[in-house]
Amino acid sequence: MSEPIRNRLSAVRRDFHCHPEPAWREFYTTYRLVEELERIGVDELAVGADAYDPADRMAVPDEERLEDWRERAREWGADEDALECMAGGNTGAVAVLDRGEGPSIGLRVDIDGLFIEEADDVDHLPAAEGFRSKIDGAMHACGHDAHMTWGLAALEAIAESDFSGRLVVFFQPAEEVSGGGCPMARSRFADDLDYLLAVHVGLDHPTGEVVAGIEKPLAMAHLDVEIEGESAHAGKAPEEGANAMHAMGTAIENIYAIPRHSDGMTRVNVGYAEAGSASNVIAEHARMEAEARGETTELMEYVESRFERIVRSAATLHDCEAEVDVVSKSPRADSDPELAAVVADVARGVEGVDRVVERADFGASEDATFLMERVQAEGGLATYLIVGTDHPDSHHTPHFDVDERSLEHGAAVLVETIRALEEQGASTSRSTAATGGTR
Amino acid sequence: MSEPIRNRLSAVRRDFHCHPEPAWREFYTTYRLVEELERIGVDELAVGADAYDPADRMAVPDEERLEDWRERAREWGADEDALECMAGGNTGAVAVLDRGEGPSIGLRVDIDGLFIEEADDVDHLPAAEGFRSKIDGAMHACGHDAHMTWGLAALEAIAESDFSGRLVVFFQPAEEVSGGGCPMARSRFADDLDYLLAVHVGLDHPTGEVVAGIEKPLAMAHLDVEIEGESAHAGKAPEEGANAMHAMGTAIENIYAIPRHSDGMTRVNVGYAEAGSASNVIAEHARMEAEARGETTELMEYVESRFERIVRSAATLHDCEAEVDVVSKSPRADSDPELAAVVADVARGVEGVDRVVERADFGASEDATFLMERVQAEGGLATYLIVGTDHPDSHHTPHFDVDERSLEHGAAVLVETIRALEEQGASTSRSTAATGGTR
Amino acid sequence: MSEPIRNRLSAVRRDFHCHPEPAWREFYTTYRLVEELERIGVDELAVGADAYDPADRMAVPDEERLEDWRERAREWGADEDALECMAGGNTGAVAVLDRGEGPSIGLRVDIDGLFIEEADDVDHLPAAEGFRSKIDGAMHACGHDAHMTWGLAALEAIAESDFSGRLVVFFQPAEEVSGGGCPMARSRFADDLDYLLAVHVGLDHPTGEVVAGIEKPLAMAHLDVEIEGESAHAGKAPEEGANAMHAMGTAIENIYAIPRHSDGMTRVNVGYAEAGSASNVIAEHARMEAEARGETTELMEYVESRFERIVRSAATLHDCEAEVDVVSKSPRADSDPELAAVVADVARGVEGVDRVVERADFGASEDATFLMERVQAEGGLATYLIVGTDHPDSHHTPHFDVDERSLEHGAAVLVETIRALEEQGASTSRSTAATGGTR
Amino acid sequence: MSEPIRNRLSAVRRDFHCHPEPAWREFYTTYRLVEELERIGVDELAVGADAYDPADRMAVPDEERLEDWRERAREWGADEDALECMAGGNTGAVAVLDRGEGPSIGLRVDIDGLFIEEADDVDHLPAAEGFRSKIDGAMHACGHDAHMTWGLAALEAIAESDFSGRLVVFFQPAEEVSGGGCPMARSRFADDLDYLLAVHVGLDHPTGEVVAGIEKPLAMAHLDVEIEGESAHAGKAPEEGANAMHAMGTAIENIYAIPRHSDGMTRVNVGYAEAGSASNVIAEHARMEAEARGETTELMEYVESRFERIVRSAATLHDCEAEVDVVSKSPRADSDPELAAVVADVARGVEGVDRVVERADFGASEDATFLMERVQAEGGLATYLIVGTDHPDSHHTPHFDVDERSLEHGAAVLVETIRALEEQGASTSRSTAATGGTR
Repeated sequence: MSEPIRNRLSAVRRDFHCHPEPAWREFYTTYRLVEELERIGVDELAVGADAYDPADRMAVPDEERLEDWRERAREWGADEDALECMAGGNTGAVAVLDRGEGPSIGLRVDIDGLFIEEADDVDHLPAAEGFRSKIDGAMHACGHDAHMTWGLAALEAIAESDFSGRLVVFFQPAEEVSGGGCPMARSRFADDLDYLLAVHVGLDHPTGEVVAGIEKPLAMAHLDVEIEGESAHAGKAPEEGANAMHAMGTAIENIYAIPRHSDGMTRVNVGYAEAGSASNVIAEHARMEAEARGETTELMEYVESRFERIVRSAATLHDCEAEVDVVSKSPRADSDPELAAVVADVARGVEGVDRVVERADFGASEDATFLMERVQAEGGLATYLIVGTDHPDSHHTPHFDVDERSLEHGAAVLVETIRALEEQGASTSRSTAATGGTR
Repeated sequence: MSEPIRNRLSAVRRDFHCHPEPAWREFYTTYRLVEELERIGVDELAVGADAYDPADRMAVPDEERLEDWRERAREWGADEDALECMAGGNTGAVAVLDRGEGPSIGLRVDIDGLFIEEADDVDHLPAAEGFRSKIDGAMHACGHDAHMTWGLAALEAIAESDFSGRLVVFFQPAEEVSGGGCPMARSRFADDLDYLLAVHVGLDHPTGEVVAGIEKPLAMAHLDVEIEGESAHAGKAPEEGANAMHAMGTAIENIYAIPRHSDGMTRVNVGYAEAGSASNVIAEHARMEAEARGETTELMEYVESRFERIVRSAATLHDCEAEVDVVSKSPRADSDPELAAVVADVARGVEGVDRVVERADFGASEDATFLMERVQAEGGLATYLIVGTDHPDSHHTPHFDVDERSLEHGAAVLVETIRALEEQGASTSRSTAATGGTR
Repeated sequence: MSEPIRNRLSAVRRDFHCHPEPAWREFYTTYRLVEELERIGVDELAVGADAYDPADRMAVPDEERLEDWRERAREWGADEDALECMAGGNTGAVAVLDRGEGPSIGLRVDIDGLFIEEADDVDHLPAAEGFRSKIDGAMHACGHDAHMTWGLAALEAIAESDFSGRLVVFFQPAEEVSGGGCPMARSRFADDLDYLLAVHVGLDHPTGEVVAGIEKPLAMAHLDVEIEGESAHAGKAPEEGANAMHAMGTAIENIYAIPRHSDGMTRVNVGYAEAGSASNVIAEHARMEAEARGETTELMEYVESRFERIVRSAATLHDCEAEVDVVSKSPRADSDPELAAVVADVARGVEGVDRVVERADFGASEDATFLMERVQAEGGLATYLIVGTDHPDSHHTPHFDVDERSLEHGAAVLVETIRALEEQGASTSRSTAATGGTR
Repeated sequence: MSEPIRNRLSAVRRDFHCHPEPAWREFYTTYRLVEELERIGVDELAVGADAYDPADRMAVPDEERLEDWRERAREWGADEDALECMAGGNTGAVAVLDRGEGPSIGLRVDIDGLFIEEADDVDHLPAAEGFRSKIDGAMHACGHDAHMTWGLAALEAIAESDFSGRLVVFFQPAEEVSGGGCPMARSRFADDLDYLLAVHVGLDHPTGEVVAGIEKPLAMAHLDVEIEGESAHAGKAPEEGANAMHAMGTAIENIYAIPRHSDGMTRVNVGYAEAGSASNVIAEHARMEAEARGETTELMEYVESRFERIVRSAATLHDCEAEVDVVSKSPRADSDPELAAVVADVARGVEGVDRVVERADFGASEDATFLMERVQAEGGLATYLIVGTDHPDSHHTPHFDVDERSLEHGAAVLVETIRALEEQGASTSRSTAATGGTR
């Protein structure tokens, strides 16, 4: 790849990097995506509520929590027209190239950041080179800045080529809360796709390595808990309270101890918790944000049901009431080996890629599975591929960073795979499915 | 008391009631106090840093948390000069009447509100009659609005009388966090007081009842806890984290179980807790705001030391580090029976008071004990009296309210006690102390 | 007291000391008491089921647990006739002196040991001098060996005197489990008592001190818990179990954290717990032996009801079932000041007694309150007195021991009090009560 | 198989079934094995300390716990000579057939029962047909009664055949505590084995199914915990205790919550726990029997190290001291596919076997891995095979039972596999190893 392109990829990624925005608050991010997409020129561009049905969204924060971020996007330079399109937190976009005969190919990249405070020591490259997060307590700590860069780069390269077929790029919001996968999967843009490519950076695979298809993205549920007790004066009448703080403590202690399951891997985490008001008041209220995962959808549901029983019992134990709200859920879906084989073949020919793994396990969850499931259900093929990067620390930690050499690798793998699929044409199974067959 | 005075007491109290401000953020409250005090006319008026040494303050929030409240006070009408005096959160005031020969008498009232959301149902009088808190999540739920009203009313009545002596009224901020008692007690205004009266409304005593002196205000410590762990991806590598959320849960479970002590009453509460960031991240950080109380200072310290061991061990158990910060402490001090007897005598003659209790136990804590301890150490007498009120629900709960008939009772008891002390002159013990004796 | 008597008291006490037997298993102890009582010669001697209605007993262990102890008593020399009288674990005895006109006076001493392993280091006198417990894991760690010695000594002295009246000595079993007080109080021997003396050694009062009457023996309930879950293979299918072990852990964590109560002192303890079978089996079963105490009967019931909710909720949380059985309960009862005054007067004249306390608080529980309550309800007077002893370590610990000088003190105080009451005659209130009056 | 043989297998198994004996207490069981082996006639028979070095044993209970079981075995008819051979709890035996040229083949069966109370309802066949466990609280709930029956049956069939080679049958004690595998593996009987067969019944495979080789027997450690605190009177001075009961509760709550590991399966269980003495004593002592498992030896050690930190921290939190003793450990070992292939081939020809699985996962642990590891390290081949049985409820539960049709299947598979291996001769790799090569 040429120096200018390389620099351009880096510049785009760094702009995204220093403006991390959490789920359904990707206002500046979407604005910048639109700006780039308009520059590139696409045949159809749908933003926010035009891209999907807002009612299909999951884990949407209330308007109050959106407002600060909208204001901040405005300060960062997002224009009013763009913000208007995203009223109600309908962020994200879908861009389409419609270039005549040929297969219909989807590419899905996610765009949201995380509530993690980015490291600011000199050993952390974004800090040293001045593109550290501009907002304390939020960070692109999972590489979605790289994903968007790939989405734009692939689209631009294909747009400039003689590609024949249909390319749909999903710039999906709210992946971290499993909130945006479902609306994208149910949108008209997901109709009749022959192929779907979803892509992730890193995941402990080094720069130069490509995994052509992953298995076992964990099924996941996001769970919000509210516990209501009764306040009382902690000194004068502690026995009069119904202690929501204590109920929360009992719940936390037991949630992590949900028994392992002999059918396979499970995960559970309480990632955010808050309770009470002041030190001399028995806490009236507590809330927790948690998640349950499983190697299969059944295993996730096993964890979820245990979670609910624990929370309710812990509340009863302390004379409180609890509500557990399933904010969002994503299923498990595996990569199709036929499609992964195409990716693997292509990757072997990409400069800088020195190791190609056909299939690997995946210990995390992903709501790309909604799109994969939809495409596979209609007879198409889907794969979830990983482009390795030397990341200095784990995903979701303050020192996470992307080795920018992988920006080129990912762009090249995606572009070349799309061209290879163009050559191959629509998959047989899809055609069958279209005429009534089922997978 | 005349109808107009009665109405005036109610109006003042309701103004304070609907503008509740938490510890060291009593900007509007202090502004209104100053306005009233200037109207009354006093011989000396010291606001904020003029009233005490800011370095003696405890439990002061950081500037960021002050700012919102200063802004709100401005919106509510506090003028810039007043706010200027309170820069850095130096709220509260001391007012002095200096009227020639006679005893030196202190009166202490507290002024802060609580982080409790006030009830808004029609059964709650402040809601029904339109003086409910103007700010969600804060409330005068401990009657400090009545206390201030008494302080102003007593001062006004004495100012208009032929009183001879010195009257010092402490409008003390930050009682709820035991933060303002110490600076007031160390200030020059607490020098050479012959008598100190501290007063509280309600505390489960009905309208018409007066308790002349209380025993056993619990000694108290406010404790802030920070737990540091390490974040990790909850799905991909839960074992890599050091889970501050889980450490917090273990701490909460065990803090409430600190063994009861055979030497007397103890209390412990975790009143506020927060941990983590997002549901898919193992929590890196947790913090708690807690308190330890004891019937004696030693018992409070017993609870405090167990608290610290529990928090540190819970952190170690989960591979985290914890810090426990003792934000503030207040000692135990008892009422002097000689002074309580004066109050009791006076109260028996006050209209509307139908029951006088010489002494009662007190299940809560109070940083008035700093002033009491200072005055008693220098040979003066101190009492902490309660003016009963029919309160519909407990202190520190959303439906707490004051029966306004007790406004008159309290004002009358205070004014008449001050006049009785004027007649009695300086206490003998004080004179002795002044000439070198000790109590 | 003469040297031979002193030696005799010591010998008797040491024989009891090295044969400690737990509640309702005092087979050897009762046998020895009977032997001594027969030697002394009494007017009526009732053993076991002759002394009380077995159906009134509480906290009786099952036959299997009795059997070992009966066998051991046999080995220690208890004869078959004596054991026959105690079939079904009906241990203990009541001895009566009926000597004509005069007041009817009750004396209650308790006789059971504890499941504590006695210290065997040379610093522990019973070990050094060869009268350490003959059975591992059981011990007279609360001084009941001294109590029985006093009971026998007082009876012997009165029997040999010209006493006129009725003396009833209750050798009560099963005090430690609050099991024997109720049947003794309901027996015919408790009818029409003018006075009741109950006595305890030590309780942190030193040798030479006597407390004439105590207040606030805590009300108490003994609680047995059974938790039923479902076993499973811990390696192959941990999710299939319902983990009674885990439910027990959750219960323990929360039981100790039952909120302190503003009305007064409470206590709670899980003193014995056992769960599970083998390390590779998810525990199917757990059981706990616990107690709840309160400064009043209401406070004890507050703790008890919280206890039950916690245990049930902890079981539900882990998909188990729990049963809470209230094994026994004892009320609160206070000493009558008139009677305590008699004891105090007498004690001041006893050789070796150098300090007399009229009244003291009592931090523990006692089922002597059943007898006290009965006597007081019928118009008699009751007191619970303490004879101090320098005990090297706390009651209920392996190094507890009695300073044998207090054996004489206690015997003298009891004998002289009985003589003083003989002189005083039946209390007025009793006479009134007998003719229809009420207290 | 003929009716008489079938009946004989059933009779032998039922005799073992109703005499279950836990680890290192298999006195009657070993006596019966010796009786049967002497009847069959073998070339070498080593019992107890003759079969292995007692110092290599793990998880041996103290003499006191052995004594009851020895006494019971005597009552059940074990003769003194046999019991003599097992002094010190050296149970189990090794039997050898030495029949000239040919491969050296090991067969390992385990012999111990579990501390589980067997069901006694009529739906439970052993109860209905009168061979339910004769001792309350112990049970053959894992099918070792069937394993021994197979060992004897195979030995008898081979003894009566023209087999040429060496057959060594390990009747291994203490499998359930991973205590007997190591001494057997280090004994001279494990020298120079070409093949090792270990066998288990059931494990959720139905009657008629055979699994020729299993993978992933979890590595395992048995952990014993002692917690020492300080006792105190729970009513009088709860603050003076250091509560071992509470420390145990905190430990249990947290042990089950050891984070899942991204490298693979882990397990943890506290299978037995006991604490305290009586309800009115703060518990001085607690002990727990637990286990840690992992898909690899490293994962097991991860759990073990977390376990230790939790236990120590929970003790510190409650001012107690804890000791964690690693009683025994067993490594992971996988079946060799070459040997499993032989078993699979043979099984396909056995009457009644209708499904053969080449390889399956195994969710439990097994100390047969010691023998497998030893044989594999010396160049031999090992497999762990499963003979299915319709078991009405899970292993390690009160209703577990074996479908006796599988007794024939297992015996036939083992006999035919031994004959097939005789034909095949020593494995090549072993020969290589014997001459200096390594695997």
